[in-house]
Amino acid sequence: MTDRVLCFGEILLRLAAPGRELLLQAPRLEVYVGGAEANVAVSLAAFGHAPAMAGVLPANPLGRAARDALRGHGVDTTALRFDEGRMGLYFYTTGAGHRPGEVLYDRAGSAFALAPAARYDWPALLAGTGLLHLSGITPALGAATAQAALEAARAARKAGVRVSFDGNYRAKLWAAWPGDPRGTLHALLAETDLAFADHRDIELVLGIDGDANAAAHERFAAAARAAFAAFPHLQRIATTTRTQASVDHHRLGAMLALRDGTLHVREGIELGGIVDRIGAGDAFAAGVLHGVLSGMDDAASLAFGQAAACLKHYLPGDANLAGVDDVMALVNGERLDVRR
Amino acid sequence: MTDRVLCFGEILLRLAAPGRELLLQAPRLEVYVGGAEANVAVSLAAFGHAPAMAGVLPANPLGRAARDALRGHGVDTTALRFDEGRMGLYFYTTGAGHRPGEVLYDRAGSAFALAPAARYDWPALLAGTGLLHLSGITPALGAATAQAALEAARAARKAGVRVSFDGNYRAKLWAAWPGDPRGTLHALLAETDLAFADHRDIELVLGIDGDANAAAHERFAAAARAAFAAFPHLQRIATTTRTQASVDHHRLGAMLALRDGTLHVREGIELGGIVDRIGAGDAFAAGVLHGVLSGMDDAASLAFGQAAACLKHYLPGDANLAGVDDVMALVNGERLDVRR
Amino acid sequence: MTDRVLCFGEILLRLAAPGRELLLQAPRLEVYVGGAEANVAVSLAAFGHAPAMAGVLPANPLGRAARDALRGHGVDTTALRFDEGRMGLYFYTTGAGHRPGEVLYDRAGSAFALAPAARYDWPALLAGTGLLHLSGITPALGAATAQAALEAARAARKAGVRVSFDGNYRAKLWAAWPGDPRGTLHALLAETDLAFADHRDIELVLGIDGDANAAAHERFAAAARAAFAAFPHLQRIATTTRTQASVDHHRLGAMLALRDGTLHVREGIELGGIVDRIGAGDAFAAGVLHGVLSGMDDAASLAFGQAAACLKHYLPGDANLAGVDDVMALVNGERLDVRR
Amino acid sequence: MTDRVLCFGEILLRLAAPGRELLLQAPRLEVYVGGAEANVAVSLAAFGHAPAMAGVLPANPLGRAARDALRGHGVDTTALRFDEGRMGLYFYTTGAGHRPGEVLYDRAGSAFALAPAARYDWPALLAGTGLLHLSGITPALGAATAQAALEAARAARKAGVRVSFDGNYRAKLWAAWPGDPRGTLHALLAETDLAFADHRDIELVLGIDGDANAAAHERFAAAARAAFAAFPHLQRIATTTRTQASVDHHRLGAMLALRDGTLHVREGIELGGIVDRIGAGDAFAAGVLHGVLSGMDDAASLAFGQAAACLKHYLPGDANLAGVDDVMALVNGERLDVRR
Amino acid sequence: MTDRVLCFGEILLRLAAPGRELLLQAPRLEVYVGGAEANVAVSLAAFGHAPAMAGVLPANPLGRAARDALRGHGVDTTALRFDEGRMGLYFYTTGAGHRPGEVLYDRAGSAFALAPAARYDWPALLAGTGLLHLSGITPALGAATAQAALEAARAARKAGVRVSFDGNYRAKLWAAWPGDPRGTLHALLAETDLAFADHRDIELVLGIDGDANAAAHERFAAAARAAFAAFPHLQRIATTTRTQASVDHHRLGAMLALRDGTLHVREGIELGGIVDRIGAGDAFAAGVLHGVLSGMDDAASLAFGQAAACLKHYLPGDANLAGVDDVMALVNGERLDVRR
Amino acid sequence: MTDRVLCFGEILLRLAAPGRELLLQAPRLEVYVGGAEANVAVSLAAFGHAPAMAGVLPANPLGRAARDALRGHGVDTTALRFDEGRMGLYFYTTGAGHRPGEVLYDRAGSAFALAPAARYDWPALLAGTGLLHLSGITPALGAATAQAALEAARAARKAGVRVSFDGNYRAKLWAAWPGDPRGTLHALLAETDLAFADHRDIELVLGIDGDANAAAHERFAAAARAAFAAFPHLQRIATTTRTQASVDHHRLGAMLALRDGTLHVREGIELGGIVDRIGAGDAFAAGVLHGVLSGMDDAASLAFGQAAACLKHYLPGDANLAGVDDVMALVNGERLDVRR
Repeated sequence: MTDRVLCFGEILLRLAAPGRELLLQAPRLEVYVGGAEANVAVSLAAFGHAPAMAGVLPANPLGRAARDALRGHGVDTTALRFDEGRMGLYFYTTGAGHRPGEVLYDRAGSAFALAPAARYDWPALLAGTGLLHLSGITPALGAATAQAALEAARAARKAGVRVSFDGNYRAKLWAAWPGDPRGTLHALLAETDLAFADHRDIELVLGIDGDANAAAHERFAAAARAAFAAFPHLQRIATTTRTQASVDHHRLGAMLALRDGTLHVREGIELGGIVDRIGAGDAFAAGVLHGVLSGMDDAASLAFGQAAACLKHYLPGDANLAGVDDVMALVNGERLDVRR
Repeated sequence: MTDRVLCFGEILLRLAAPGRELLLQAPRLEVYVGGAEANVAVSLAAFGHAPAMAGVLPANPLGRAARDALRGHGVDTTALRFDEGRMGLYFYTTGAGHRPGEVLYDRAGSAFALAPAARYDWPALLAGTGLLHLSGITPALGAATAQAALEAARAARKAGVRVSFDGNYRAKLWAAWPGDPRGTLHALLAETDLAFADHRDIELVLGIDGDANAAAHERFAAAARAAFAAFPHLQRIATTTRTQASVDHHRLGAMLALRDGTLHVREGIELGGIVDRIGAGDAFAAGVLHGVLSGMDDAASLAFGQAAACLKHYLPGDANLAGVDDVMALVNGERLDVRR
Repeated sequence: MTDRVLCFGEILLRLAAPGRELLLQAPRLEVYVGGAEANVAVSLAAFGHAPAMAGVLPANPLGRAARDALRGHGVDTTALRFDEGRMGLYFYTTGAGHRPGEVLYDRAGSAFALAPAARYDWPALLAGTGLLHLSGITPALGAATAQAALEAARAARKAGVRVSFDGNYRAKLWAAWPGDPRGTLHALLAETDLAFADHRDIELVLGIDGDANAAAHERFAAAARAAFAAFPHLQRIATTTRTQASVDHHRLGAMLALRDGTLHVREGIELGGIVDRIGAGDAFAAGVLHGVLSGMDDAASLAFGQAAACLKHYLPGDANLAGVDDVMALVNGERLDVRR
Repeated sequence: MTDRVLCFGEILLRLAAPGRELLLQAPRLEVYVGGAEANVAVSLAAFGHAPAMAGVLPANPLGRAARDALRGHGVDTTALRFDEGRMGLYFYTTGAGHRPGEVLYDRAGSAFALAPAARYDWPALLAGTGLLHLSGITPALGAATAQAALEAARAARKAGVRVSFDGNYRAKLWAAWPGDPRGTLHALLAETDLAFADHRDIELVLGIDGDANAAAHERFAAAARAAFAAFPHLQRIATTTRTQASVDHHRLGAMLALRDGTLHVREGIELGGIVDRIGAGDAFAAGVLHGVLSGMDDAASLAFGQAAACLKHYLPGDANLAGVDDVMALVNGERLDVRR
Repeated sequence: MTDRVLCFGEILLRLAAPGRELLLQAPRLEVYVGGAEANVAVSLAAFGHAPAMAGVLPANPLGRAARDALRGHGVDTTALRFDEGRMGLYFYTTGAGHRPGEVLYDRAGSAFALAPAARYDWPALLAGTGLLHLSGITPALGAATAQAALEAARAARKAGVRVSFDGNYRAKLWAAWPGDPRGTLHALLAETDLAFADHRDIELVLGIDGDANAAAHERFAAAARAAFAAFPHLQRIATTTRTQASVDHHRLGAMLALRDGTLHVREGIELGGIVDRIGAGDAFAAGVLHGVLSGMDDAASLAFGQAAACLKHYLPGDANLAGVDDVMALVNGERLDVRR
Repeated sequence: MTDRVLCFGEILLRLAAPGRELLLQAPRLEVYVGGAEANVAVSLAAFGHAPAMAGVLPANPLGRAARDALRGHGVDTTALRFDEGRMGLYFYTTGAGHRPGEVLYDRAGSAFALAPAARYDWPALLAGTGLLHLSGITPALGAATAQAALEAARAARKAGVRVSFDGNYRAKLWAAWPGDPRGTLHALLAETDLAFADHRDIELVLGIDGDANAAAHERFAAAARAAFAAFPHLQRIATTTRTQASVDHHRLGAMLALRDGTLHVREGIELGGIVDRIGAGDAFAAGVLHGVLSGMDDAASLAFGQAAACLKHYLPGDANLAGVDDVMALVNGERLDVRR
């Protein structure tokens, strides 16, 4: 577990209404540090890996506080740059029962979004790195970040660094500027070894229509086959499957498709009394990456990723802070009573 | 949705133990502004109507804070009067699982309860009003408020203002003074167009015994028939039906009886992980009123009222702050994942 | 209900992460006063009995605050002694869903643990006492406290004071010093009238192997028979039975074995949305003791104990603060809606 | 310091805006237990005396929480009675700089105020008591409490129990009912051994006009002479003297007049950065009483009382929780750096 | 006091570190609603006037919460418009002693800053208005808001509505875009009746150099003479004068220059233990406006404005919530002890 | 500023009563990470240096949280070791006015205190280090830590690493075990280049009596001369001088004595409204070290250290988080108004 993992993306502050209050129902906010790729970095640090974070933060107390939080969690932050600009924020209302949670993004014009692609010296940033992790949010933020993400992936490919890419397709972000989501994501997946994506993400990028009547795992398997055909570097595609009985009560399964056609499917785990659903996908990605980086077999990696994602629902904040033992306890179905 | 709705009743401060603590288990209280009629006013404002509040508050910082809270929610508070006296309070412990919540009323001797009926100039207060909303709590507070409520209802009837009346029968309040609940409620229902009442309320007022062996909807239908017979102005009677698996887990249905004998029945919606059950009845009333004021058909009004009442269980505080879109999302069964 | 009950044991401060946060995820702690025997004392006070607490606290603001908390709850604290030393602490993380709660003990070297057995003048401390309550935690803390517990039990036996003993076996505590758990607990049970113990506790003390294939109640009954044979003073053995669907969702039954072979078994009560599971065993002990002290029959005592333990899950803090009426409401299945 | 001191008066809950916020500027309140006589009792307990509290509390969770708080501080609460009625409250805004603090009383109609004089069996309540402490607030609450206070003082006189009386004249309370402040206070002072009163209190009761041009200590001395002449049982009159540079910055001196004409005067102590000014007069009374009860000479008692009153300004809450050593450190001018 | 006052400007949310903490030292923020012109509106409402607010807010929960806060304080918010865009924010660290407070603006790209001048129909917005209040912040935000402010002032002049203008010169804001501060402010002052400005503001706009050796009041008087000469509509120029012994300890005087050459000068008031210094200038403006609108003479208006500004230092939040009586108590030097 | 600074000592958690409350007056604690040497490390990181921390923490969530906090502040924590044992704690009550703050140490038996001297491989730990910082607290904790500190200092001397030593004499800690404070501190000072010590520390170690009648700076100069004579490696001795008008109002000067006999004396800076006095000495040490490490002249280093110490009084928590610019602003007497 000594290989450096470089995560590149925007670090955000979550400003959240406490408990189950509405936003500003009372005049106070709780603050967490998040961002899809940062969440993966924090979780990998908690699993004992050596993640580093690349990106741009504003040169102000908010940017420095975000850096300190990652640093505190054990992420190497020396590759972060501090520029003029604002901090990316999002306001969050948790939701409960039949009232959905709400994310109000306030990230436009952030120092990260405005940083030119040339701000990053990828060969230098990737030195000593075994894996680069990106997500589909970065290219969705604008032309500069789209170019930066693509350059990062290509530099990694060129340097023999494996690429992990989490689709994280957000139509709203892409709609805010005249970007080309399909072309951009296609170019990124062309450099990817390990993708986190569901059938919708793949079908969108490939411009194909899945069989709406197929069972979930079949539709995913079909999309995966098409993706492996289109992207020769791609080795694995992983996704969670989620059903929701209420805002607080979900069921979370997971699937992993391999280039050889193997499909690993994990049945759903019941998630009642959810505490914080944000970042579960990032926790899943970090969990699967842990498996891959640690040399687990694919089935074990998927089980680890699923359990990590499940645990995240019970941890306040954006990132999964659970350790390997915590996740394995869930994988192994250990008893749930208070540990003394 | 431009018609003014006038709500008349006592505004209360809720002083609540935080979270699931017992009252004063720790030395702090959370404060919300409530009161059955004020809750209806706030919810109607959130639905885009033009509610106004009539009543008396103490001329002190507590009374002014209550006024400001309603005003902030968009309720017209210019009809409120500020007199000597104390603020009506209630202390609240939320409860959980097998431990029921508890309301400790501390409203005796409030400025509202002591205000003489002559404090209200109903013709002036009702000017420009399309609907007057009252509840059975006001007449239960004492002779002065009983008279005021009756005068309000009669003035409304005389002025061609529709009257909505929520039974809210509270035996304890009536027992605290030598009032005549049956006679008073009878007189109020005689002026009412739209009543919120269950079979118990109706049977009590009419002095009849329902069939304890009948199905719930049949007993309600029978009571409604008797009420329509007794009160010629009455057009609709609506009620929720609630079953409780635990303090945090209920099931909430709803029924609406029409003068023509039609009975609309909504099956129960499962409510797990309840956040705040207080004010659900007021949220239901406001929801049904929204339907009626907006020209929805009766079935749609009932569905809207039921969904509004359900949502209230997941909002801290006394009043339903959800908007029309929020309620319609539940009516339509939209997906529950975090909205981004 | 006038007989004095003397509880002897260590009083602890619980320093807990708020809500469902991880320990020190945010820089704040909530504080509760606990300790197995103190919890029993507090609960007995809430049931209207006259409990007193014996033990040693540090002569500092923490020790005095712990004393004040017990005193505030109605426990007679005049038998507590204040010596040099530190306060016993434990740090607590609540857990949720699939994330177990965690207790981090920080009680080593406390004023209580270091107090020599000679610090206690049992004949004087037991004067006017009807029942002495001990637990297996005290002898597990070290040679001095083991001796003190044994002297207390023997002095009680000699003085005709009934002895109640809650096994509370904690392997970790015993492992921290070269004590003899089996011998010590055997000696304590030899003086006990009423024991709180499950089949594991009994089998361990007696060095017997239960039938792993037997039904739970049969294995308990067999262990109880062996215990009654080994300990002639022993009249009753009570235990809860717990199954856990998740960290927040348990099912809690209870059993009571009598010397005459009678076994009372209470089916499990469903506990969803648990607030605070700590102290449920102590609440059970106090509930059963209330029944015994109040002259209830055994079945009623067990039902009362089970209901008390269930209620504890919905009260923040270590001790059950519910009164007799609260517990009886659950025993009687009274309605769960908000009490007004 | 073994003599029992009985304090008789109303126990109040303070509901306070946190920090320097206005009342309900944010929707939360901090809660403290207070009341002039209860504050004296708590302070005497902290000084190692054996105070007991007499009075009536509401038989509800608020009344019980108030009782528990006093009990926790070491006050004997077995003489408290629990009746129907409401809890006396006051809402508090702390003030700062040029913005004065504000007390909003909400105590009318409390269980204490409504309790008939016959509720108290003074001979029984005074058994074993060395000193009875009353204040001018109790007779100001209404005819029943005025009679109760007078009966208490007379019963004490008859039983040879010394009487301490703190004037605490509140014009607003007396104005709320047709009471006779001058006559009532006169009758109470006639039974008093030790009075806490300034020249205004004395001049009012005796109906005399002081010399507005005299120095403060001369005017006080003259009033004291008149009081000693009018009230033959009176031995000592003590008062603080306060000047205010701002809401947070006062100067507090003290004077003690003796029947033999001696006048002890303590220069003002500078009080900057005041934390909580409420209860300083009660802290002074308790401090002087400590001196008297402990056999200090009069000058030392006055110095102790002044220092206790000064310390109270730096303790949140109504009652002085400082111990004898804390007060003596200020009397002796010990160094102020952090104690380690 | 019935004349409508229209305030036009950006409404901001203050996100503040609690107490004296650094920003994000702990992960929580306190929220207040502010903005220079909104603060004036809120204060005028507290003084009993009828202020209305014009401007643009984002159509999201933050914008609505800001609207609700103003509405709650009694400001007419019906002239506010809700558009796409973000909420203007500022992060605040209070400072203490020798550590200055810090404002971190995060208002770029707000819905208000981006709203085109044509968004405002000034003749309609000014209908029924007696006074328009603007500040120098609005034109500093960009070309669109500069144009809007100018159009507002000219429309007011044309409609016979008096114009009040608070310079509030912020070099940083002007530096962020190629605006012309001097020309714009000149044009605004040309329409102004009552200006809040110090000698620096005036000298900057007029391009003159004051006498650095002159006494403060002389330099201000000279600048005022030049301003009256340059701006024929201008009748009054008011300013505060502030000296700072530490972050928490200031001294605040005030001056008012009249067109006839009269200069009113108020000596500084000592401000120790400052709670919240933000918004003091707005409180001053509102205080002077209150005097002018209420028909006070100029000296009295200035005294009222100074006292209002002083009080603001002791109120948490951006706006002065003190009423006329509170301010007059300070003007009159009433006693500072707790009001009961 | 690239030289690595190694700080060796115990890391503590501060558990503090919020605001000006007494410990456990309300059931909550605020948590900060401290420890004399860790505070120096954090402050040096904030000044842009590269500090590392050596020591032992418990292998539990508390130890890891302490590590994370230091890491977040930019301290290299890779030299920390995690062993069995408990976390060093201290409970803190802030104090106010005439009520002194109180530290209640609960650090006995910590993992750090129990770690054998052999746990540290000093040659390896000191590799690449320019300066080693120690304090007198470490040797006071017991024989093992005394030996470890001495070995660290000697290894540093041998490796050509400069040694900084802060006396921090704590009689209570030394009294808790049969250590030899004078001999141990003497041996440590023999290896020291830069000492933080006042005349008392020096006189104690050298066993000399200073002239009680001499002026403070003369007595310090005399002690320094003696120290330079006794310890040939010693180059500089620095100290603060503090006078206290109240708990919240101090005056802080500073002195620096050089081997050549030069004495730099800084007049006291007035510190009113102190927020948090803990760690001021560590902030001073870090400030002086910053000057020395950055090549400032001695007078400038002393001024920087004094200003850093002063600023610390206005920052909550144990460590000075101010940056170089913040400190220089105070050195330069920049204006104190809110920075925007």
